[in-house]
Amino acid sequence: MSAAGVGVCAAQGWSAAGVPAGIKGGGAKDVAVIASGPPARAAAVFTRNLVRAAPVIVSMRRLARHGAFRAVVVSSGNANAATGEAGIDVAESMCGGVASTLGCEAEEVLIAQTGLIGVELDAQIAVRGAEAAARRVSADGGMDAARAILTTDTVEKIAVEKCRVDGGEVAVGGIAKGAAMLAPSMATMLAVVTTDAAAAPAVLRRALGAAMEESFHSVFVDGCTSTNDTVLLLANGAAGTREIETREDPAYAPFAGAVAAVCRSLARQMAADAEGATKLVTVDVTGAASDADARCVARAVAGSLLVKCSLAGEDPYWGRVLADAGASGAVFDPSACEISYGGVVVCRGGVAVAHDTAAVTAHMRGRDIVIGIDLGSGAGRAEVWGSDLTHDYVDENMGTS
Amino acid sequence: MSAAGVGVCAAQGWSAAGVPAGIKGGGAKDVAVIASGPPARAAAVFTRNLVRAAPVIVSMRRLARHGAFRAVVVSSGNANAATGEAGIDVAESMCGGVASTLGCEAEEVLIAQTGLIGVELDAQIAVRGAEAAARRVSADGGMDAARAILTTDTVEKIAVEKCRVDGGEVAVGGIAKGAAMLAPSMATMLAVVTTDAAAAPAVLRRALGAAMEESFHSVFVDGCTSTNDTVLLLANGAAGTREIETREDPAYAPFAGAVAAVCRSLARQMAADAEGATKLVTVDVTGAASDADARCVARAVAGSLLVKCSLAGEDPYWGRVLADAGASGAVFDPSACEISYGGVVVCRGGVAVAHDTAAVTAHMRGRDIVIGIDLGSGAGRAEVWGSDLTHDYVDENMGTS
Repeated sequence: MSAAGVGVCAAQGWSAAGVPAGIKGGGAKDVAVIASGPPARAAAVFTRNLVRAAPVIVSMRRLARHGAFRAVVVSSGNANAATGEAGIDVAESMCGGVASTLGCEAEEVLIAQTGLIGVELDAQIAVRGAEAAARRVSADGGMDAARAILTTDTVEKIAVEKCRVDGGEVAVGGIAKGAAMLAPSMATMLAVVTTDAAAAPAVLRRALGAAMEESFHSVFVDGCTSTNDTVLLLANGAAGTREIETREDPAYAPFAGAVAAVCRSLARQMAADAEGATKLVTVDVTGAASDADARCVARAVAGSLLVKCSLAGEDPYWGRVLADAGASGAVFDPSACEISYGGVVVCRGGVAVAHDTAAVTAHMRGRDIVIGIDLGSGAGRAEVWGSDLTHDYVDENMGTS
Repeated sequence: MSAAGVGVCAAQGWSAAGVPAGIKGGGAKDVAVIASGPPARAAAVFTRNLVRAAPVIVSMRRLARHGAFRAVVVSSGNANAATGEAGIDVAESMCGGVASTLGCEAEEVLIAQTGLIGVELDAQIAVRGAEAAARRVSADGGMDAARAILTTDTVEKIAVEKCRVDGGEVAVGGIAKGAAMLAPSMATMLAVVTTDAAAAPAVLRRALGAAMEESFHSVFVDGCTSTNDTVLLLANGAAGTREIETREDPAYAPFAGAVAAVCRSLARQMAADAEGATKLVTVDVTGAASDADARCVARAVAGSLLVKCSLAGEDPYWGRVLADAGASGAVFDPSACEISYGGVVVCRGGVAVAHDTAAVTAHMRGRDIVIGIDLGSGAGRAEVWGSDLTHDYVDENMGTS
């Protein structure tokens, strides 16, 4: 695969790099810089965890004070969370190192970090790594950047979409890391999405906000919410198309659609690459009294340990699905419920129904499992993605070393 | 151990039996009957799951219509849940079989069941087993009954407490099954507590309600809530002591204390015997703005998959504990937080603190782990019990067969 135009480098004016700084050790890439020629406007969504990592605090401050950004530095291996004022100083210094290398202000550099919580981050290693990555940014660096932000992920997560603004074309591209802790309210996840569209900050905020619910907020792996979750959307206008000023602009819908498609693709890649996962499960809930109720049921089922274990065992245990739906808090009539695996209905009217067991067995053996739940109580619907629970998940989280 | 006076047979006038009926197969005991000579008053707490198993529906109806009970029939191996009207008929027939054997009315027999959801229960096998158990009840049958109600539990759970009512002594004894799905709002758990005290139904309801929060509701294993959860408290007055009529009665406090102690003991036995568990963890939260906030944090930490995996790996990863507390929804100042393992403080002021690592390592190697969290924000406190997450948990829940 050509490394040009990949992920965050798909849009014009964007360059990136990923280097091994020594935070992870073993020569693994662990610091990425994503840079723009022209200053870029930005929108962001951060963790709702009360415990915010230093990079979250630093980036939030910058976004509140500043309207244009030249780069994002991302590091992996150490979350720089629960590290107090010293951690904030390290994050600031990394931004400063990138800024002086690129020739911009520290205020124009955002930061995101992921890794172990509560471990001091060595300032010298981190700053040197940030500077090294900043020196190497190029249009070919998208894949290296995608690699450098991973923790226990097994593959890089990249996505690109294009859309038209009047006669011109703009690109939206992104990279992400997920793995464990993918929860209803984000996860231990980072995503950086770049575009060469020109858009007002309010338009970026709206497009990103709209994309979140059906992408990163729809991934449910283990219910844990991180201290570091960060999603950034940056627009540098390098495509030369006119600025999208409001959501009433006819170019807003296709642009927001491209942002949503990139986020959705990254989110599904995360669910598929969850720690230890051998299955990607789509829980598709229909017939709920409201979309909110449908989402509630979908999350309860995708997040259920017992359902996750049964997926690992390729066992279509719909009784647990029904029980988890019933415990979700959503209101519905269990005796109107229909449950299917891969489209084959196994429960109707809340009780077992004769069905093609061979077809269900074959579906359960695949990597993509679809659990359909029709609550029979309305028009509300939602889709949530999860994974199975395996020995490997346990092993990956038994120790920090 | 002598089988006389064990568990539900500790109080006078109570007898029990546990027999293999063939629901589980392999000759395992799977039907218990617990009977009283004198009619007993009852209080009950049932699952909050919207999907209620047939035995829950049947017992709720009886408790609403009837004030005195002669027996409880409990079966394991099939939950008789999501089985529709046919399942209700089977549960009614089991009660009827017990009643005709004991010579009482079917309305005087309560029922609880546990096991697989969504699988038809063979009426003939179930009724025959209920009758066989009813025929064999004796004062020596407490342990057999405790055994017959288990599913994936590895040991019987029994507890007895005594207290005084004026000059006389009353006994409170119970049996329970837990294993998986122990959640904040009960679990797949059944418990039957019997006493020879005489008490008004309102007194029984209050004593049981008060006992729930710091016993069964404080066990958190996997966040799943069952269709079948049932806790019953029955009082037959056979001790000959006067009736406890109100909660202002001086005998109420010692009686409620004995009920609470039995429930607490059974709940801790459940947590210790959770599926695949090698550790019993006590999460002790202090310094919260309220008890409710403390409980919220304790549940989030005890229920965190990542914390549970780290316990299996004997890794004192306090960063995850802090992150899960922060995501719990409780409000506190992370920079005032103190976290300890086995009393050794590892995080103070929200950051790592030098400590005796050998002492922490030794504590993590034990079976009983205590995680202390002082939020530094008030006087609220709570204690929740959980377990670690191991390969065995995954294996036990991979398949239903």
